[in-house]
Parts: sequence; C-alpha cells; structure tokens
Amino acid sequence: MVKMAKKLSKEPYKGVRDFYPEDMFALNYITDVMRESAERFGYVEYSASLLEPTELYESKTSEEIVNEQTYTFTDRGNRSVTLRPEMTPTVARMVAARRRELSFPLRWYSIPNIFRYERPQKGRLREHWQLNCDLFGVSTIEADVEIISLANEIMKSFGAKDEDFVIKINSRNALADLAKKANISSEKQNELFRLIDRVEKMKPEEFKQELENLTGKNAEAVKRYMEGEEVPEDVASILQALAGRGIKNAIFTPSIARGFDYYTGIVFEVSDTNPENNRSLFGGGRYDNLLENFDEESIPAVGFGMGDVTIKEFLESRNLIPTYISSTDLYICVLSDEAKQEAQEIAGVLRSEGFNVALNITEKKVGEQIKKASKDKIPFTLCIGDDEIKSRKFTLKNLINEEETQTSKEGIADVLKGSSS
Amino acid sequence: MVKMAKKLSKEPYKGVRDFYPEDMFALNYITDVMRESAERFGYVEYSASLLEPTELYESKTSEEIVNEQTYTFTDRGNRSVTLRPEMTPTVARMVAARRRELSFPLRWYSIPNIFRYERPQKGRLREHWQLNCDLFGVSTIEADVEIISLANEIMKSFGAKDEDFVIKINSRNALADLAKKANISSEKQNELFRLIDRVEKMKPEEFKQELENLTGKNAEAVKRYMEGEEVPEDVASILQALAGRGIKNAIFTPSIARGFDYYTGIVFEVSDTNPENNRSLFGGGRYDNLLENFDEESIPAVGFGMGDVTIKEFLESRNLIPTYISSTDLYICVLSDEAKQEAQEIAGVLRSEGFNVALNITEKKVGEQIKKASKDKIPFTLCIGDDEIKSRKFTLKNLINEEETQTSKEGIADVLKGSSS
Repeated sequence: MVKMAKKLSKEPYKGVRDFYPEDMFALNYITDVMRESAERFGYVEYSASLLEPTELYESKTSEEIVNEQTYTFTDRGNRSVTLRPEMTPTVARMVAARRRELSFPLRWYSIPNIFRYERPQKGRLREHWQLNCDLFGVSTIEADVEIISLANEIMKSFGAKDEDFVIKINSRNALADLAKKANISSEKQNELFRLIDRVEKMKPEEFKQELENLTGKNAEAVKRYMEGEEVPEDVASILQALAGRGIKNAIFTPSIARGFDYYTGIVFEVSDTNPENNRSLFGGGRYDNLLENFDEESIPAVGFGMGDVTIKEFLESRNLIPTYISSTDLYICVLSDEAKQEAQEIAGVLRSEGFNVALNITEKKVGEQIKKASKDKIPFTLCIGDDEIKSRKFTLKNLINEEETQTSKEGIADVLKGSSS
Repeated sequence: MVKMAKKLSKEPYKGVRDFYPEDMFALNYITDVMRESAERFGYVEYSASLLEPTELYESKTSEEIVNEQTYTFTDRGNRSVTLRPEMTPTVARMVAARRRELSFPLRWYSIPNIFRYERPQKGRLREHWQLNCDLFGVSTIEADVEIISLANEIMKSFGAKDEDFVIKINSRNALADLAKKANISSEKQNELFRLIDRVEKMKPEEFKQELENLTGKNAEAVKRYMEGEEVPEDVASILQALAGRGIKNAIFTPSIARGFDYYTGIVFEVSDTNPENNRSLFGGGRYDNLLENFDEESIPAVGFGMGDVTIKEFLESRNLIPTYISSTDLYICVLSDEAKQEAQEIAGVLRSEGFNVALNITEKKVGEQIKKASKDKIPFTLCIGDDEIKSRKFTLKNLINEEETQTSKEGIADVLKGSSS
C-alpha cells in the first residue's frame, strides 16, 4: 500500500458523536427503554430513510428554525435532498401514502436519527436520536391522555420519580381563541404562539412590549390567560383523566406553546424539576391537519418526540444510567497450545446454549488475558490449561465480586446462568 | 392552518425505503440475528454518525467506484461532508483515535446504514444496512478462521443449510506474488486484482485479452493460478482449520479478489449456491495497513460486511423470513362506557407484568375492533363489556388458532404466557 503524504484526521465530523462500546451501551440502554415502553402501550415500530425530498419541509408545517437549519443539498440527479430535521413530516407522508390500507387507529413509534445544522453546544448536537410516538385516527381526549400517559410511563421506566419531572400542558385551541379575541389574523397567530413560548426566557417588560406590538390594545386577554387562573376546558378534562390514572404531576402551563406551527389541540412538555436546570426535556401535541398537505383528508393525530441527548443529561444528573458491562458473558483464557482445541469446543457448546463467549487467540500471558477481560468488563473468566484438561475441573471467576467457583465442564453453564438471573 | 396550493408527494426519496411495520419487522429480524450472532462470538457493538469528513474516503483505501458514487456535499460552514459509503474507514478512524486506551484484540461489530449514489435496481439501493464485524490486533490465521467461522455461523443462525451457500476464499498475498512474478508494478497491482475479480462476468477471450494487455508475456502464471490447482499456503491452512471446526463448505476460489484496495491477506465471499442466482451475498478480508493513514502504526485487522438487502433476497428465496406478527401481545376490545375503566386497569396490570397491550379508545363496534386486532396480527383479543364485569369471567381469543380460553382476571397473564412460551 502506498503511504499517503497527508495524514487523515481521527476526529469525527463536527457536532456528531462516535459511539465506542461504552457510549453504545448508554445509547442502547436509552433506546431499549424507549422501545419497551412504547411497545408496552401497543405501539408498533416503523422507520424510513433519513433522506427526504426537500419539499417535504418547505410547507408551513415546520418550525421556521428547522428550515433555516437543515442539511440540504442537490444530488447527482439534480434532486434537492434534506436530511430529516424531525420525523413528523415523514410519518405523515407514510400514513397519507397508505391511508386506505391501514387500519386506524394507528399506534406507531420510531427511533430515528435527526439532523440540524446548528452550533454544537451542551445538549444540542447536529445529529441525535429521537423516539417518536404517534397515535393517528382518534380525535377525542382519550388519545391525548394515552399519549401523555405513555410519556409519563417512559420517564418512570427510566427510574425517574414523580418529583423529578413535571408535565406542562397547554391548549393551542385556547391560544387560537385568544388570538381571535385579540383580533390577530390567522396568519399572525403563529407569531403570538412563538412569543408566548419564549416568555420564560424574556424580561417581563420585553414580553409586554412585544405583546403590545402584536396585539395592540387587545393584550389584556393574553396577559390574563398567562396568569394561569382559568384552565381551558380541554386541558382541565385531560388533567382530570390523568389524575384518574394516578398521574399527578401534570399541570396547566399557559406559557407552553411549542415551536411547530402544525399543532392544533393540546401541546405539552415534560420538564426537569431540578431548580438549577428546570428546562424542557421533550414534548409534543395534537396535529390534526398535517395530512392535508398530501392531497388527503385530514386524520386526527397526537404524538411526541423525545431526544436521546437531553434525556441522557437528565438521567446522568439523577444517576440513572446503568454502569457499563460487556454483552460478552465469558472470556476464556487459553494457557497452552493443547488447551486451544478444548477452549474452542467449550466456547462452541456454551454459544449453542445462548451464552456470549470470547476466547483468547493471542500468545499473551494469562495475566494479560485476565486483565483484558477485566478491562473489557466481561463478567466471567475461565482459564483453560493442561491442569484443567487433566483434572476435568474448571474455575470460573466472577469479575464483579471476585468470587471463584469450581465446576465440571457440564456445570459451567449453570454458574453463568446463576449470576445472570 | 393555511392549505397549500401544491400538494406534496407521498413517495420517499428515490432509491430508499419506507419501513411500514411489516417491513420493519423483517429488517429487525435480520439485524437481530446479525446482532445475536456477533455477540455470541464476543463481539461488542460500536457505532458512529453517517456524516464523515470527505477526506476519509479520498485516500487510496477505497474502491474507485465508491468515490464516484458517494453522497458528498458542502455544509453551511464550508466543510466537505460525505454520507459514509462503507464502515471500514470509520472504524479504522475510531480505533486509531484511541489505540492507546483500547485493549487489543478488539472484537467489534456495528450495523450502520450506508449510502451509495447509484441507479436503484434489484438488490442495489441507495441506502442499506450492513453488519460489520472486525477483529483488530491479531495477525495470525486464527483471526481469519474466527471471522470466517462467524460469517458461517450467521448464515446458520438464519436457517441456511450447508448446501445453500459456499464460502469462497482467496489470498491477496498470493495474488500480490503473482503480480510481482508477472512484473506488474505495485501501482498497477490493484488493476490486476480488479480484473481477476471480474473474470466470471467476462467472456474468456475478453479476460485473456485484458490480462495480456496488463501483464504482457507474463500472463501464464496468472492463468495457471486461475485454474485453482495450487492452493496457496495461507488458504490451505485456513481451510484445514475451518474443517477442524466442522465447516466444510469453504473452498479455495482463485477468482475472488474483492473490490477494495485495502485488503492485504485473505479475502472471502459467501455465495448463494442456487444455480439460477449464484451471486455473492457478502464478503470481507484482512486489511493490515489501514491505520497507517492516520499517522499510526498499522494494526492487523480482518473483517466483513453483510448487507440487509442482499441477505433478505436470499432468505426470501429460501423461505427463511418469519411471518409478521405484531409486537403487541393483546388487544382489549371495549364494549361499553362502563367497561372503559376496567379495561384500563387490566391493561395497566398486564403491562406492569411485561405484556404489550393496546386497547380500544374509539366508539367502533366490537366486530370492527376485533377485525382491527386481526388485521394488525395481534395474537390475542379480550373483550370487556358489562357481562364480563358482572361475571368476572373473561374470554381470550387466540387469533392464530382461533381457540378461546375462559379465565378469571388473574388468569389472563397465564393464558398469554402459555402461548408465548
């Protein structure tokens, strides 16, 4: 091979992550909990390519900021392609394409990676994974209640306690009524929603000024709403139904509006209650009109998206990510040439019984072999040398509690099983 | 919401796939078998972003065709980015970046999606998923034997029989010797490898002509090698070791060279034996010099890549893909308003016991509810109405064998368990 003059960088592309086995373990833990929770509620998995025709995002359905921050390029066939910045337009497209064959209501989930071109910073990367759960075909609040219950259940499955998070709920219907009362045209209504969504990040005078610019003398109704005294009817019904299911940490929050323009009913956010970091962890809402963009009648829909980066930071702050352990159950150390064949045979038998087994194929000394297994966080080691072959006695060492167990060849599986149960 | 004048297309981007639940089931089946097989051999999972700096593929390490067929674009920060066309450069980059902390040998696997801009056709899409298994740090044939054994084991785990596939092995060392003997400069050596790799797709005279153009009067040694009578030493040792492990469908095949320039030792391909479709299913080989591109000493490495599209076609042709069944275990039909609460409670209890439960939240008639569960391929339905609440007797219907089982509320879990075991 010709050596190159210029050496290649070992860094990944800016703002994305390499997943070494320990990182992969954490990502898999997070997506496994997401997957199991969604399936518990009868949601089935779908997926799609991250490449989408750019026009899918050129409608009024997406957050402005998304359109400014997409990865968009022209392919070699002169098509404009975008790396999906969110999953909702894709799932709406897929449902529209098969609405006649699909049996509603649909309970669907996916854990796609999504892309945004933005300055990388804590909790904001250019690529992240996002659980999307959506329920299509039910317009009543029973669907909203189910989706919020599922969001709550995922938090619980991660080990979060009631006091760790709060579910903030608002009504886009109530906000739209408010806009109407304030004589804001339907075109300008989204500006009001975005302003409300930003209120907690603004100074009170600043908010007041922008509100008055937008609504003129009709700002009073908005201000009154923002005090949160009068709970909109739909939010009240949902809160009551959630309480009936034992979910008590949901509250009406008038300042939650969500960034996407496509929401039509309730919107909600799950927030960290840590006073030093009480930010939004994830959220969603009802979007009943999205399928109209595909020349289809609308189908009622409600859903949410939960990103891996934000939830990981939350879990780390609460010590809720399990410690890395290898997916390999056993590392077999080989002490002599004669032991090679025996080691391979034992590995083969254990694998056929469902155990994950690695074995040494180097000339390294036994101490180094054991050290490697320990560094790799493999729960058990087994050394095979001439003594073991002669005596038919094998010693399994548990790397976590350092216990040693002597057993016959046939007993190895039981020792491994004993610990994993 | 403002209705748009132009309606959006419901089609995915050209050459990529939407995964509806049935498609996702098949993809998950394939990747689950890949994952389990790799882990059985002690391989641990890693991953990375599909976005890579373009320079990673501008070295001499990749197939020419790859460079001509990548998705490459300039990001908003003027960086050239490529959607990975294969995983090997990425894993080499990751290993190089942490070679001092990692404990060798490494057994690593990943199931990334990879991208090629080419005309979509049967078995060739613009995006596919590919299992990558690599073993870093062992230069002896024990590593080659392990990697080929793993490839064989995956085929077996998919249900393929010995007669369904053959493992073709060749030696890049032997080919390099041949090139040397034929006085081909090391720059031109890859041209010879590529010519050999194409031999089975060429007419004999055409091959002969191109070979003579390349080697002049030294074509004889190549022709003799291509007859396959003399098995190179490294291939012979590997075949012997594989036979010792009971793998008998491996053969020396002088026409296997593989497209990538980075291979240095053995190369192999697993091929379909179906005479009507005896094409390559996947392959790999040894690449000992790839890390040199990162200003690092080389680390011996051997691995393979197995794509989901090709293997799916193979499995379909052998009827080896299981029939779709929902991940949801039970669908609860709700027959009256009074039954709603009871249904929610039963669902909650079953979920806490680990079952996946969906329940009706529409006003549809019971017949329609059952039909939906059946259409969705959910194994069990349970109808809850006033009668069931009064009598405390519940009837579970198995949608596959149509058996009905009457049970108490507490017995529902046992009926569900009974069938899943």
